[in-house]
Amino acid sequence: MSTADHEVRTARAYLSRVAEPPAPALATLVTHVGPVLAAHLVRSGEVPPEVGKETDARRLVHQPEHDLAAAAAAGARLVVPEDDEWPAWPLAAFDLATARGLVAPLALWVRGRQPLSELVERAVAVVGARAATAYGETMAAEIGHGLAGRGITVVSGAAYGIDGAAHRGALAAEGTTLAALACGIDLSYPAGHTRLLDQIAATGAVISEYPPGSVAARHRFLVRNRLIAGLTEGTVVVEAGVRSGSRNTAATARALGRVVMAVPGPVTSAMSVGCHALIRDEAALLVGRVEEVVESVGRLGLDLADEPEAARRHTDDLDPETLRVHEALPQRGGRSAEEVAFESGVPLNRVRALLPTLELSGHAERCDEGWRCPRRPRAPSTRPSSDAVLRPTRAPPHPPG
Amino acid sequence: MSTADHEVRTARAYLSRVAEPPAPALATLVTHVGPVLAAHLVRSGEVPPEVGKETDARRLVHQPEHDLAAAAAAGARLVVPEDDEWPAWPLAAFDLATARGLVAPLALWVRGRQPLSELVERAVAVVGARAATAYGETMAAEIGHGLAGRGITVVSGAAYGIDGAAHRGALAAEGTTLAALACGIDLSYPAGHTRLLDQIAATGAVISEYPPGSVAARHRFLVRNRLIAGLTEGTVVVEAGVRSGSRNTAATARALGRVVMAVPGPVTSAMSVGCHALIRDEAALLVGRVEEVVESVGRLGLDLADEPEAARRHTDDLDPETLRVHEALPQRGGRSAEEVAFESGVPLNRVRALLPTLELSGHAERCDEGWRCPRRPRAPSTRPSSDAVLRPTRAPPHPPG
Repeated sequence: MSTADHEVRTARAYLSRVAEPPAPALATLVTHVGPVLAAHLVRSGEVPPEVGKETDARRLVHQPEHDLAAAAAAGARLVVPEDDEWPAWPLAAFDLATARGLVAPLALWVRGRQPLSELVERAVAVVGARAATAYGETMAAEIGHGLAGRGITVVSGAAYGIDGAAHRGALAAEGTTLAALACGIDLSYPAGHTRLLDQIAATGAVISEYPPGSVAARHRFLVRNRLIAGLTEGTVVVEAGVRSGSRNTAATARALGRVVMAVPGPVTSAMSVGCHALIRDEAALLVGRVEEVVESVGRLGLDLADEPEAARRHTDDLDPETLRVHEALPQRGGRSAEEVAFESGVPLNRVRALLPTLELSGHAERCDEGWRCPRRPRAPSTRPSSDAVLRPTRAPPHPPG
Repeated sequence: MSTADHEVRTARAYLSRVAEPPAPALATLVTHVGPVLAAHLVRSGEVPPEVGKETDARRLVHQPEHDLAAAAAAGARLVVPEDDEWPAWPLAAFDLATARGLVAPLALWVRGRQPLSELVERAVAVVGARAATAYGETMAAEIGHGLAGRGITVVSGAAYGIDGAAHRGALAAEGTTLAALACGIDLSYPAGHTRLLDQIAATGAVISEYPPGSVAARHRFLVRNRLIAGLTEGTVVVEAGVRSGSRNTAATARALGRVVMAVPGPVTSAMSVGCHALIRDEAALLVGRVEEVVESVGRLGLDLADEPEAARRHTDDLDPETLRVHEALPQRGGRSAEEVAFESGVPLNRVRALLPTLELSGHAERCDEGWRCPRRPRAPSTRPSSDAVLRPTRAPPHPPG
């Protein structure tokens, strides 16, 4: 695996420190002249005004070696686009979205042993409200577990609530998970998730585009969210209030051409309002099972979810006319073919032809009074029907009077 | 209001008795030769073979006067297409859907005082599982109540569970509701809903296309469902299992060009699986509030639902650059403009211009050490934010260490 040389890495470490992301003008400059010359120009102040606006406040802070050492002390490294492990393929979507203010990171601080590009080769974001309900956390953990168990990296933001549950679900499946932070790689935010972040880094990765020591701030959460959306094939919003950072992640995912999914919940739950709005107003895909998530982001139909299993009734194979004849059979006593024809509205000659067929398939039996419905249906279904309209009675119901 | 003459009504009463609906061939014959001649031909057996198949079994049962009297004894009448109160406009959709086996009724037995056409002038179907959950029944009652309170007739099937809750919700709003039965108009199905059906008929209507004395049967529920779909502008499925009569109603509604809506629920609930499948796989509209139902069936955008109200943050009006400056202000102590510029990444000259503006709007204040964030935000929101990502802190959070 080839890696960038020290000069390039140092230049990008410096740029990571001086510009608050996203810095579109600086990104353009780096694309045009390369990171080493860009760093030199920024430091000397010889840049176009737009780049100056993004870099003037901190351009004299030249401490790349110090930052790289601080990262190393925290077990992290700086991954740059010149490295083989740079996730170039997923981040390429940003090139098409620059007009919408979506800019790829200049570099990523990474804690974790595996090459970053391999980690996100197949990855899905699972995000949601911090003030999640028990339902939401259960769903997040289940989806995180199911994705990770299928070899898909679960990407989230390490926040309390949905994010944490998704990471934990993935860890419980001994799968891979990745947390993107809105603070420096050497800090733990939220503090209560310090141990969780250590666990994530031990098998997956914790990443950040902020230099060591940067504190979490509101605008950084929104900026960070674009990484979660950008590094994944799709984003699942598990729970979200009316106005939620997760909806921002979802909007970014859509802008980057990624699949946006949302888990429904009770409409009486404030924490599902955001998910329902995504489905209703923004055409997010409704997902309720991990198979549906996998299908939604699946390639070339290789991962089609099975239809939920429906209970089969023993009359399922009957055509409508035969079904009407069957339904005209009494459970007690018996009816003549003429009575069955009258009751069902099916012509007598058809009834006379159908009754023996129904007898053969176990749907009708002869008795002293004529024909009736057998006491035991041929093939009872193996699981209870979830159909509600017709469960209690399988024969024609008899109203009073 | 003009009504059909007795001969026409008697003919249709006879046809209602002899053919099990839907009877497409008979319907075509009636369209071509009129009900009186059609009845005569059916009775004498002088009909094309396809009509014969639909009518041979019962054609000799000629008891229209008896059936009309039985209906009258139950407080019902036979409404025919030749009556002014025939709901011709909604049922016209069947003319375009005959190829799919969807056939308009030949006549409708109606219990209730109001003209049928007026009752369904603006109507929405609310249907769902019989084995509904408490959540489902609450939602059905709420939607039924909300629709009826807005002058919209709530149409359903009078079954236990969702149907009953929807009817009751409408009655509680002193609104109008209509029940379509799968048995004769003189019978109550289910028996436990006898009183409910009386209440529905007292202010709205109970209808059936089956002649008096007909018992409920499985295929009749499916046939009846097309009336529920056809008489309404849209169908709301509140709860449905994997395989449910409600999904059949929804499919019919779609085939008739009507709006199909579904209420989401916990994905862990078997009674929401059908609703989620409708939304996910059949593009049903997700609805969670009655306003959304009204909007979905609304005419010409007159009924647009308000966006759910979101809490406003006191920093909502700040542009991104100003927000960054604001977030760089400490809550304790203070920072110089230079420190704020460094922290925020915003150029110093911009910071110097923005700080006084922030001071004016109450977002910043001067102190001995420079600038800080005021202790009390300017305008606390009047309701708690349901946003979960950022609620606990409004200033930049400070991680440990």
